[in-house]
Amino acid sequence: MGEFELIERFFKRPVSRNALGVGDDCALLSPAPGMQLAMSTDMLVEGRHFLSTVDPSRLGHKALAVNLSDLAACGAKPLAFSLALALPRADEAWLAGFSRGLFALADAHGCELVGGDTTRGPLNICITVFGEVPAGQALLRSGARAGDDVYVSGTLGDARLALEMFRGRLSVPAAVFEAARTRLEQPTPRVALGLALRGIATSAIDVSDGLLGDLGHVLRQSGVGARIETAAAAGLLAATSRVAGATPLLHADMQLELVLAGGDDYELVFTAPASARQAVQAAAAACATPVTRIGAIEAGSGLRLVLADGTPLQRRYPSFDHFA
Amino acid sequence: MGEFELIERFFKRPVSRNALGVGDDCALLSPAPGMQLAMSTDMLVEGRHFLSTVDPSRLGHKALAVNLSDLAACGAKPLAFSLALALPRADEAWLAGFSRGLFALADAHGCELVGGDTTRGPLNICITVFGEVPAGQALLRSGARAGDDVYVSGTLGDARLALEMFRGRLSVPAAVFEAARTRLEQPTPRVALGLALRGIATSAIDVSDGLLGDLGHVLRQSGVGARIETAAAAGLLAATSRVAGATPLLHADMQLELVLAGGDDYELVFTAPASARQAVQAAAAACATPVTRIGAIEAGSGLRLVLADGTPLQRRYPSFDHFA
Repeated sequence: MGEFELIERFFKRPVSRNALGVGDDCALLSPAPGMQLAMSTDMLVEGRHFLSTVDPSRLGHKALAVNLSDLAACGAKPLAFSLALALPRADEAWLAGFSRGLFALADAHGCELVGGDTTRGPLNICITVFGEVPAGQALLRSGARAGDDVYVSGTLGDARLALEMFRGRLSVPAAVFEAARTRLEQPTPRVALGLALRGIATSAIDVSDGLLGDLGHVLRQSGVGARIETAAAAGLLAATSRVAGATPLLHADMQLELVLAGGDDYELVFTAPASARQAVQAAAAACATPVTRIGAIEAGSGLRLVLADGTPLQRRYPSFDHFA
Repeated sequence: MGEFELIERFFKRPVSRNALGVGDDCALLSPAPGMQLAMSTDMLVEGRHFLSTVDPSRLGHKALAVNLSDLAACGAKPLAFSLALALPRADEAWLAGFSRGLFALADAHGCELVGGDTTRGPLNICITVFGEVPAGQALLRSGARAGDDVYVSGTLGDARLALEMFRGRLSVPAAVFEAARTRLEQPTPRVALGLALRGIATSAIDVSDGLLGDLGHVLRQSGVGARIETAAAAGLLAATSRVAGATPLLHADMQLELVLAGGDDYELVFTAPASARQAVQAAAAACATPVTRIGAIEAGSGLRLVLADGTPLQRRYPSFDHFA
């Protein structure tokens, strides 16, 4: 199977919305009048972003999901994406699975493949995604203001729990592992929530490196600090809740660490004025995505963790860094 | 040096034209009214697209140049690009050289870095480039018509000559090798020519896999055939012309093969009506880029090579394929 047959068989599909799809030197995109084009790119490397044993259809899903998550964090509606793929060899079973998972998620979001590149090389998946947002309405990292509430969508920490299981550092029952593994391998980009939060949220970012690290970007770019209530945050770990019984599955410290610094969650952390609490909950309900208030923005700088009674917590948590 | 320091030191620069540059979940692009956004992506892998010994500043140049070449082939004006980079380690000398070569070419074309991703992994460079073109005026692969002339810009075959030297399959004098090596490692994207050909050329593509292979895409997408005059084509190999003297440096068959099937040239091959010959030469002169007429489009399908006296040439040439 040659390069062009590979593209033809697994990646060429009719493109309807955009002016010109796969098969010319460039794809042509025409945002509607008054719309800005939001663009983001993420590169996934074997052994860093996924394990070599991952099911290829789950990998196809994840490669696009992490990019759609960036659109969600800007409140942009998905339109199109390009795919650059380095493959050690043209493995038909792998390509069939990968493209199936990729296009299933793409179709669910009306996001069309419009261009790309394929080459031989160590497995590497680089997707660039395009969305549209009315000019001036994108959710940015720089808009948080003192007094705003801090929210997180969905659950946090499950992806890291699965990774620690794969690494042999934690042991949990099989049902918990499967639930956590699905979150690691098939994250849900919060696209509908991002759209619903336009005009309500003052800032947003998606959680890829860990809640505290990613929230830190918002604080620095907004010139503010924040207080996070650990009691609210600790409840966000979903996989463990699948096991009935009075005995907690994980030590409370471990649970909190997974939530605060786990990473690979692809949930949205966002801020909104206290006056918008009803609007936030209505937006969340409208897209069936739970959101939890976990703290508040403060004047100044830095991030404080506080217990339920307001006592400060001194522990530090690392944020994920590919080169640290 | 961590991931964020790496970005800060080598890749963060003020962004002027686009709404939002490096540092949010998405970059925001606002094409001017009436403009379409042209987008292309190319992935470069060590050992496939460049040798591990290449000077990093030349590699920075080439990584962007091959993408700008796709914009040129569409007649699009460069605006912005994103850079996804997998690096085995954060090597400061390498990063300094790479970013210097990258930004020198970017600045020469007014093309701003607006987003990207960095990760640890086998060296892989994936650039997505954005340009603008008036709606409906992009040069496409599908517009060639019977009777059109076929042109090539600049020179062909020098990059492949250098590659064959690196592989030890050819031996030429040092001055020839240096000239050819510069063409391999620092190709010149024909951006000005692409812009000048809007409204004149009926189709265009850039030569990356070899003249015959890439022209073949134009023929298939235009539903036409072509006749290429080998006498006109053979003169396009530039590096050998640097050596004075009556004895040809390479066998004529080898010279023709380098020109027709060498690849990695990043010249434009384009078609234009015979009535536009003066306009083509004026466009070429205006941007100081020589163009050579090498044949004509014919009704039917397929590509014929003919000698100066019209005799058909039967040899077949392969087009580069990463998975063949």
